[in-house]
Amino acid sequence: MTLISADGTILRMPRSEPTALTLLRRTHEAQVVELLRRLGALSRAELGRRTGLSRTALSSITGSLIGRGVVVTAPAAPARGTRGRGRPVDLLRLNPAIGRCAGVDLGRGRVRAVVSNAAHEIIGSESRPYPRRTSWEERTAIALELLDTVLGGGSDGLEGIGIGLYGPVGPATERASAAVRLFGERYGVPVLVDNNTRLAALAEAVHGAGAGTRHSVYVRLSHGVGGGLVVDGRLLRGASGAAGEIGHVPADPRGPRCHCGGRGCLELYASLPAVEAAGGLGDDAAVERAGRLTGQVLAGLCNTLDPELIVVGGELAGCGERLLAPLEAELRARALPAVRQGLRITAERLGDSGGALGAIALVRQESPAPRLARQPYPAAAGTGCTGPVVSG
Amino acid sequence: MTLISADGTILRMPRSEPTALTLLRRTHEAQVVELLRRLGALSRAELGRRTGLSRTALSSITGSLIGRGVVVTAPAAPARGTRGRGRPVDLLRLNPAIGRCAGVDLGRGRVRAVVSNAAHEIIGSESRPYPRRTSWEERTAIALELLDTVLGGGSDGLEGIGIGLYGPVGPATERASAAVRLFGERYGVPVLVDNNTRLAALAEAVHGAGAGTRHSVYVRLSHGVGGGLVVDGRLLRGASGAAGEIGHVPADPRGPRCHCGGRGCLELYASLPAVEAAGGLGDDAAVERAGRLTGQVLAGLCNTLDPELIVVGGELAGCGERLLAPLEAELRARALPAVRQGLRITAERLGDSGGALGAIALVRQESPAPRLARQPYPAAAGTGCTGPVVSG
Repeated sequence: MTLISADGTILRMPRSEPTALTLLRRTHEAQVVELLRRLGALSRAELGRRTGLSRTALSSITGSLIGRGVVVTAPAAPARGTRGRGRPVDLLRLNPAIGRCAGVDLGRGRVRAVVSNAAHEIIGSESRPYPRRTSWEERTAIALELLDTVLGGGSDGLEGIGIGLYGPVGPATERASAAVRLFGERYGVPVLVDNNTRLAALAEAVHGAGAGTRHSVYVRLSHGVGGGLVVDGRLLRGASGAAGEIGHVPADPRGPRCHCGGRGCLELYASLPAVEAAGGLGDDAAVERAGRLTGQVLAGLCNTLDPELIVVGGELAGCGERLLAPLEAELRARALPAVRQGLRITAERLGDSGGALGAIALVRQESPAPRLARQPYPAAAGTGCTGPVVSG
Repeated sequence: MTLISADGTILRMPRSEPTALTLLRRTHEAQVVELLRRLGALSRAELGRRTGLSRTALSSITGSLIGRGVVVTAPAAPARGTRGRGRPVDLLRLNPAIGRCAGVDLGRGRVRAVVSNAAHEIIGSESRPYPRRTSWEERTAIALELLDTVLGGGSDGLEGIGIGLYGPVGPATERASAAVRLFGERYGVPVLVDNNTRLAALAEAVHGAGAGTRHSVYVRLSHGVGGGLVVDGRLLRGASGAAGEIGHVPADPRGPRCHCGGRGCLELYASLPAVEAAGGLGDDAAVERAGRLTGQVLAGLCNTLDPELIVVGGELAGCGERLLAPLEAELRARALPAVRQGLRITAERLGDSGGALGAIALVRQESPAPRLARQPYPAAAGTGCTGPVVSG
């Protein structure tokens, strides 16, 4: 007998104590569910590669998960250029009716709320602008109202909420703790908070321009210059939560003093205000200089981090090749051969939704997994497991 | 009945199928063993913090491990300045009679071999110089001979071998595959290979100047300038295995052309040959300039990575404060307030042994754990488990 509770937990009545063999199998099942939970849709081949399970073992596990309605199949969109070759591959994903996640990006000028389901489909997305002088209390009130709207009247099946904030976000950031309290009390689910530019980096790495990569650098050229690093698939936060401040790497060590205390920081040359002061986004020379100096700073960073992908975002990325061509030329001229060989440089894909989508990716990566994934077998100290359990 | 096999595996005859509760307990036991395996000696308080187990649960688990001879206790050395305050704290560690690991550093001018036991005590260390023109075949022959000596005539209880090589080491490096084959065939245990400067970074982070830190940057100022990054306790290798090339971050973007293709790379100013050309290690101004430019490059890196510790190694680190004071001053003047606040800068502690010790740390972190840790319960498809099993 299988019961699926309101929050997607699979509840089963054990018939007898499990054997070591069935426990091993359940661990494998949990691995499969966890991979689909984190990564969305995967082919059987990709699942096999990532779990290390044999075709036979994997087929038996996915068959059982499909039979129980936890996993569903859908044909993959044919890759460009492969149309007609071979038969289409089925992708496996978690049943979209379970495991919703919400992402809220509390930016300087607007809030955006996005909700996705366990199949990583976006089932709601809204944004609302506010003036820059809006107080923290007013911003969060607007955010809560917007999230209520996007959730469509209830937090049933909500697995967690991710929140992106502008400015530095570390373990000691007061706004972060306030957000965790506020959203946690309102919705009764785990809440995770991070800097919204770092979250955009994560979103691009998981769902956007970097889908499938393990090591990427995201740089946002906007009112300020910021960024985020994804190392081995996870966001790098640093010791105090300040990691990713690419805008404060010197582009010219003997350049003018920056507000941060440093000298000749990249932000002084490649931010929107800097480009506007040098001629504006329409001025080729101004955009070219921003691209070139960004490429120069990224070269040093790449020699240290050796990423496979650079994603360029923010308003300046809208200049396309006028920015990216000089950026890439300078980067390739200065990076070590081993580093530049496998390196790809591209514009961001997710735009203004990146922060909120990254907040969701953060929850899927780091929040306590739903019972579905972590407890394929009722815990020893659990309840009787005969009816729905409310999450939170 | 408990049998401990030659390789430290605990073999037990199951009396009956385990219950979910005993399996949970065994998972916790494996966690404790794995932590001690990776980190050496830990206090009960530290074990509690890292496992999240209650005092009662932890005490029951450690009591059982001590009773079975897997874990032993030893009083901790009193911390400096705390003598006489309170009673000494016992540290727990794995029984030194099990789980040996070997580290071999095949450097440009010498090979070093180190062997440590499961308690992370060094039980053998030897080094042998060779001329720089020595061929790869001769170097590895010397290394094998040296390792035989240090192992004391046999690979009994050997868990794995870590090998450090100079130069870039990535997934496609031929010397790395050759070393894995050669040492793997000779000793019949897992072999892991990495760049020896990166391994020194790991060694400092685990056992040296950075013991207890999660995020550190190691920079080595020697014949070349190299380094390694430890992120969240693990070595960062990058997409092609080239991560850590701090020597090729520009100190002066308009400076002279470097052999790597870049311009004004740090290596042109802060390597041993550069300092010798500018006046030598005895020349304060030459050393000061090397320190200042290293600090400048590290500032940009710190704003991106936000580490808690910088470890400076190599021959130049021997100049002490003449190098470190200008380095730190420049770094603090240029790093963001949030980044510099918690940042510590120090000289390396492990010197010439760093590469070999890091190779051991790599094995303890990343090799398939010994059966002791990963299979607290005989696997379903295992043998009858009534006698010793030979590892490998």
